[in-house]
Amino acid sequence: MLSIVLLGTGNLAKHLFDGFQNQEHIKVKQVYGRNKKALSYFQKETSTTTNSNAIEEASVYIIAVSDDSITAVSELLKTKNGIVAHTSGSVAISALPSSVNRGVFYPLQTFSENRAVDFKEVPICIEAENTNDLEILKNLASEISDTVMEVSSKQRKDLHLAAVFVNNFTNHLYQIGHEICEKSQISFAVLEPLILETALKIKTLSPLEAQTGPAKRNDYGTMEKHIKDLQNKNHKEVYSVLSNSIQKTYGKKL
Amino acid sequence: MLSIVLLGTGNLAKHLFDGFQNQEHIKVKQVYGRNKKALSYFQKETSTTTNSNAIEEASVYIIAVSDDSITAVSELLKTKNGIVAHTSGSVAISALPSSVNRGVFYPLQTFSENRAVDFKEVPICIEAENTNDLEILKNLASEISDTVMEVSSKQRKDLHLAAVFVNNFTNHLYQIGHEICEKSQISFAVLEPLILETALKIKTLSPLEAQTGPAKRNDYGTMEKHIKDLQNKNHKEVYSVLSNSIQKTYGKKL
Repeated sequence: MLSIVLLGTGNLAKHLFDGFQNQEHIKVKQVYGRNKKALSYFQKETSTTTNSNAIEEASVYIIAVSDDSITAVSELLKTKNGIVAHTSGSVAISALPSSVNRGVFYPLQTFSENRAVDFKEVPICIEAENTNDLEILKNLASEISDTVMEVSSKQRKDLHLAAVFVNNFTNHLYQIGHEICEKSQISFAVLEPLILETALKIKTLSPLEAQTGPAKRNDYGTMEKHIKDLQNKNHKEVYSVLSNSIQKTYGKKL
Repeated sequence: MLSIVLLGTGNLAKHLFDGFQNQEHIKVKQVYGRNKKALSYFQKETSTTTNSNAIEEASVYIIAVSDDSITAVSELLKTKNGIVAHTSGSVAISALPSSVNRGVFYPLQTFSENRAVDFKEVPICIEAENTNDLEILKNLASEISDTVMEVSSKQRKDLHLAAVFVNNFTNHLYQIGHEICEKSQISFAVLEPLILETALKIKTLSPLEAQTGPAKRNDYGTMEKHIKDLQNKNHKEVYSVLSNSIQKTYGKKL
C-alpha cells in the first residue's frame, strides 16, 4: 500500500484525487491546502488540513499547485522522508529542496472542472534521482495509467512546450473558428466532426502527411481572398503567420 | 431512385462514390474523368468515361474536382437537364453556368487517401436556386448523412475559412509539436491523448471557456522562457502571434 499526501486543491489535485481513490494499492491519507473552502471537495473521503505543521508522514507527497508556488510548498516538506514529487510540465526537478527525495509526477493532459478524465489514457511522465524512488513513482503511476514514461527535466520541458502548441494554441484556433461561425450565424457545432477527424487522423498519418489546404498547395489566390475576407485584424495575422509557416515547412521538403 | 454522374477522380470523388454505393435510393451511373488510370478505382462498380461527349443523362451531376477546374468541367454539362452541383467550400454557386440547374453539395470534412470516412457524421451543406432542386439535393444528402444544412454561398465561404483554422492550421500545430518531440527524442504518440481531449472538450465547453495556458493567464515569465527555448524561428513567430491573439481575446472580455 502506497500512502499519499496531496498538496493543492485545484483542478489537477481534484482529478488526481479522484484517480487515486478506489485504487486498491493507493491510500490518500491527507490533503493539504491553504484554502479551507477548497478542501471541502476532499473532506468526505479523507482527512484534510490547512496547517503545514500537521502534514502527516507518507510514502509520496504529490504537489499539485501552480508552478510559482511549487518551491514554497515543497519547503514545507523539507524534513519528510517520503518522495516529494511535483506535477508540473515546465518546472525542473531541481526546483525542489535538495534535502528531500525529489521526484516528478507529470500527467500530460488538460484538466477542466466538471469534466471527468480517464487516467488510464493519460501518459504520466516520471522523474526521480535514484532507481528506488523511480520504481515507487512508476508503481504509483501504473496504478492509474496505462502509459508511464521516464522523462528527463529537459524532455519534460520540451513536451510541455509541444503541449502548448497542440492544446492551448489549437483551442485558440477553435475559438477563431467559433468567432467566424458566430459572425456568419452558423452553429459552431457543424465544425465538430471536422475537428474530431483532424485530431484522429494523426493516429494513422503523420501531421506532415495529413496537411492539406491553400498554404500547403501554394494557392496564393485563395490565401489572398481569405485574408481579405477576414474582418478581424488578429485573425488576419494568425492566418498569415500560420500559412507562411506551412509554406516554409513544405518548401523545406522539396 | 436518384441517378448520379460523378465528375472527378480525386480523394473526394472516391469518398463520395463509396458513400453513395450501397445506398438503396442512389445509383452512380457513371464517373467521368480525364485521367484513364484514375478511373480504374470506379471501373469495377460503374461505367466510366474520359470522353466529355459521352456523359450520360442523370438527375444530379456532382462535380468533385479542384476549385480551379470547376468552371471548365461545369461547361461540359451546359446542355444537361439534371442539377449540376459542385462540392467546394469556397466557390460560389454563381461560378456554374447560368444555363444549368445550379447547386452545391459541400461535405464539411477532410478527406484523405486510405482513410475511410463515415458520411453519417459529415455535415453536408447544400444550396440551390429553386425549392425543387433544393429538395432533391436534400434527399440525396440525407441518404448518406445525418446532418444536412441549407447554407448560402456567403455562409459556406465563411465556414470554409473557419475550417482552414480548425483543420489546416490545427494540423500544422500538430506538426510543430511533432518537430519539438522529434528534436527531444520523445515519441509524438505521447501527445495523442491530449490532442484528442482538446478536440473532445469543445463538445461540452466553448473554446472560450476551455482555454488554458500561459497566454490565457498572462504568465509573461513562462512565455518568455518558451520563446527562448524554441530553436526554430518559425516556431517562435507562431508562438508569439498566437499568444498575442489569445491575450487580446481575453483582454477584450475584461
